[in-house]
Amino acid sequence: MSTTIITAGYIVIGDEILSGRTKDKNIGFLASYLTDLGIDLCEVRVVPDVEQKIVEAINALRSEYTYVFTSGGIGPTHDDITADAVAKAFGVSIDLDPRAYQLLLDYYGEGNFNVSRQRMARIPAGADLIENTVSIAPGFRLENVHVMAGVPQIMQAMVLAITPTLKTGQKMLSVTIDAPLAESSIATELGKIQENFPQTSIGSYPHSKDGKFSTQVVVRSRANDVLEQASEAVRAAVEAAKTKFL
Amino acid sequence: MSTTIITAGYIVIGDEILSGRTKDKNIGFLASYLTDLGIDLCEVRVVPDVEQKIVEAINALRSEYTYVFTSGGIGPTHDDITADAVAKAFGVSIDLDPRAYQLLLDYYGEGNFNVSRQRMARIPAGADLIENTVSIAPGFRLENVHVMAGVPQIMQAMVLAITPTLKTGQKMLSVTIDAPLAESSIATELGKIQENFPQTSIGSYPHSKDGKFSTQVVVRSRANDVLEQASEAVRAAVEAAKTKFL
Repeated sequence: MSTTIITAGYIVIGDEILSGRTKDKNIGFLASYLTDLGIDLCEVRVVPDVEQKIVEAINALRSEYTYVFTSGGIGPTHDDITADAVAKAFGVSIDLDPRAYQLLLDYYGEGNFNVSRQRMARIPAGADLIENTVSIAPGFRLENVHVMAGVPQIMQAMVLAITPTLKTGQKMLSVTIDAPLAESSIATELGKIQENFPQTSIGSYPHSKDGKFSTQVVVRSRANDVLEQASEAVRAAVEAAKTKFL
Repeated sequence: MSTTIITAGYIVIGDEILSGRTKDKNIGFLASYLTDLGIDLCEVRVVPDVEQKIVEAINALRSEYTYVFTSGGIGPTHDDITADAVAKAFGVSIDLDPRAYQLLLDYYGEGNFNVSRQRMARIPAGADLIENTVSIAPGFRLENVHVMAGVPQIMQAMVLAITPTLKTGQKMLSVTIDAPLAESSIATELGKIQENFPQTSIGSYPHSKDGKFSTQVVVRSRANDVLEQASEAVRAAVEAAKTKFL
C-alpha cells in the first residue's frame, strides 16, 4: 500500500458565495469525496470574480499542493473569467479550443452557437478537457489545476470524470466516539491520549441540543492498529468521565 | 450616507471541515449577515488546525481588509490552538486572562474549573472579550481580528454581540431578475449592459431542474438610481430573448 500523502487545495470562485446569495454546497461534497479517495484537502479559499484574486489564489495553491481544484466562473457570461485567470496564472495563451468548439457546435447547432456560447470554448493552451455530461461545456486541467463548473450537479459530474486520473494516497481512517459530556469534561484525558499516540489526530467536536452539551471525538490515522489502540483509550476515558460527571 | 466601503475576510479553522466530517454552516450565515449590515465579505479561507497555517491566514487577511473574523478552535481541548496562533500572528504574549477566568470560574464553580476549562481563559494580551451568551467561554477581538467559536449557535451569538462595534459602509443593493432561459441566450446582452453600467456588478447564475435550464440575473450597486436603470435594461433584454428563444 502506498504511503504517499496526496494533498489538495480548493478554490471556490464567485461573488454570489461571498454575498450570501448562494449557499455553497461544493466544499462539503469535495471534502468528503477527496477524503474517501485518499486525498487530503488542506485548504479552501473562496474568492470573488476578480481576476487578480483568482490568479493569486491559483498560484499560491498550485505550488503548495499535489492538486488544485476550482469551481465557478466558466460559463458564457461577462463575469465568467476563470479560464482567462488560469491562463494568466500560468503565463500561457488562451483562445478558442478546436475540441471544445466542436463539442459545443454539435450541441447547440450552427444557428444557435452565438458568440457568448463560443466563449465557453476558450481554453488555456496546453490544457486537457474535462468532460461535462450534464451541459456539454467542458472544464479543463492544466498541469495540476482542475477547473470545473460551479453548479453543484455539473461540478460533481466533472469530479467523477477526473477521478480515474487522480493519484490517491493512503487513506485517512477514522473512528468516531460519542460522549454524552461537555468536551471540557474529557479534554485533559484527550490531550494525554493525543500525546501518547502522535501518529493519530484526535479531534473533539462539541454540540448542543436543548441546552445539553455532548461531544463527538474523532480519532484519525493512516495506520489501522494505532487507530484502534488510540480509539480504545478514548473509549476508556469517556467511560471514566461518565462515571465521574454523570 | 457614508460612501466608505468596509471590507472583511473570514477564516474558518478546523480539520473537521476539510475532512468533510462537518458541513460548514457559518460561511453562508456570515456572508448574508455582513451583506445586510453593509460590510463586503471579500475572501474566505478554510484552514486546518495547524498553527503555521492559521498564523499565515490571519496575517494575510488582517492587513488587507477592514475586519477579519475567525471561527473555530477556541475550546478546551488540545486541538484548540486558535488563541495561541492569534497571539503569534500579532507577536503578543498570551496568558490566563483575569476577566475570562472569572467568567468561567463563576460558571463552572471552583470544584469543576479544571485545567482544560482554564485553557478557555487564555487570551492574547491587549484583546477585548467577545460575549458568549450560549456557553460563557468568550471569544476575543485583537485590533481588527474577531475570534469566535465554531459551533454555529455560539458563532452566531458572538456575531450578534460584536455587531454594535462594527463600522458599516454603504449597503450593496441588489435586484434579482428571473429568466426562464439558458444563460447563454442572454449572455451577450448582459455583457453590453455591464459595460453600459460600470457602477453595477451584474452576475448571472444558471440552474437546472428536470433537465431545463433557467438563470437568475443579479444586479448589484450601491447607487439606487443606477441599480434601477440597469435592472430595467436587464428586464428588457430578458423579454427580448424570451421572444426569440421560447
